[in-house]
Amino acid sequence: MLQLYDLAGAEADRRFSPYCWRIKMALAHKGLEVETIPWRFTEKDRLAPTGQGRVPVLTDGERWVWDSWTIAGYLEDTYFDRPSLFGGSAGRALTRFYANWTDTVLHGALIRLVVLDIFRHTHEKDRAYFRKSREERFGASLEAIAADREARLPAFREVLAPLRLTLRTQPFLGGDHPLFADYVVFGAFQWARAISDFSLLAADDPVYAWRGSMLALFDGLAAKAKGYPV
Amino acid sequence: MLQLYDLAGAEADRRFSPYCWRIKMALAHKGLEVETIPWRFTEKDRLAPTGQGRVPVLTDGERWVWDSWTIAGYLEDTYFDRPSLFGGSAGRALTRFYANWTDTVLHGALIRLVVLDIFRHTHEKDRAYFRKSREERFGASLEAIAADREARLPAFREVLAPLRLTLRTQPFLGGDHPLFADYVVFGAFQWARAISDFSLLAADDPVYAWRGSMLALFDGLAAKAKGYPV
Repeated sequence: MLQLYDLAGAEADRRFSPYCWRIKMALAHKGLEVETIPWRFTEKDRLAPTGQGRVPVLTDGERWVWDSWTIAGYLEDTYFDRPSLFGGSAGRALTRFYANWTDTVLHGALIRLVVLDIFRHTHEKDRAYFRKSREERFGASLEAIAADREARLPAFREVLAPLRLTLRTQPFLGGDHPLFADYVVFGAFQWARAISDFSLLAADDPVYAWRGSMLALFDGLAAKAKGYPV
Repeated sequence: MLQLYDLAGAEADRRFSPYCWRIKMALAHKGLEVETIPWRFTEKDRLAPTGQGRVPVLTDGERWVWDSWTIAGYLEDTYFDRPSLFGGSAGRALTRFYANWTDTVLHGALIRLVVLDIFRHTHEKDRAYFRKSREERFGASLEAIAADREARLPAFREVLAPLRLTLRTQPFLGGDHPLFADYVVFGAFQWARAISDFSLLAADDPVYAWRGSMLALFDGLAAKAKGYPV
């Protein structure tokens, strides 16, 4: 019995963590059923067995596993007889850079566009925590960060250049089929989609077409989740 | 009998193309002997059988192969019984993003730091071509582009963040052993090393240690090539 603590907003079914989305896609890739448990930023105590305070956290029977990279590796090693998330040991090592690029470059560019939208969708009990922690991190009010997002949009799209060039020559980062690298990058877009109606991609962008393919995977797992049209 | 047309500077043994370095490392990875032929930017006619004017160009007997990605695939498919450059089909697909990130982000950040150094090392017959084409591309004189490179250095190092984070957790991008992804990224550093004494990396940077490992591979193939101490 698999359970995933999954970051939720004001509504329990609005799930907007990019790291949790990586794992939900990975679980579907493996064909594994999971019960997701809505969790809010300030519910650190519910994760006490992990000794840390962030999601995703997966429980597999008695076992607790946390950190999206660690969970992906756990799923690959434990459920090795199901479709691979990495396509072998080389693919696994090569996927690290995708995670690090996404965590730093992609998320860094994206959060400035949607941070105020995230705030508006957080649970009431999370709002003071969210505003204080993010305003400290950016050294500006949430409203100030979001104010010039139209002007920042071309720079955001420029950040996607390596992704765009790759998706011009193959349907997925993993090649003909999606792999965990696809889920890592897609998590960022699904994060944005869950809480923001801001249009990130031009319709003629290969990244747009790829995002559409990702939304449709696993009987529309991501497309059916609460969010805004893209 | 393999031959590689390899970009050379004023001295025939100063080889500074990052794309050619990818292939020289890949050939060594496969344990294949190659004769490198010094080639200059303006010698387009020598590549006539390829119908294009850039190196690397590989000849394998009667066969001509060009474009570094195509050559790597050719070597992998033709010499499949030798060590793999990609670690399988997933690894091959996953390596595309590394090439696109390197071509756009890494080279884009690096060239502004070393473009004047490249010019100083180009062959006399290439100088007018090089200055004109690069000044048109950047909309500034080579001297103006290079003038503030000390000020640009922190931004360059910031660009390496995804690489740095990855190399903190594993010795090579390919994992325990280098793969073509490593050669793609390393080509950029070997390009700089060939023509510039400008210090790109801090000694405590994991990227610095990785570059040292790359320089030492294949009995110091890259370290022994003409260039500056790093």
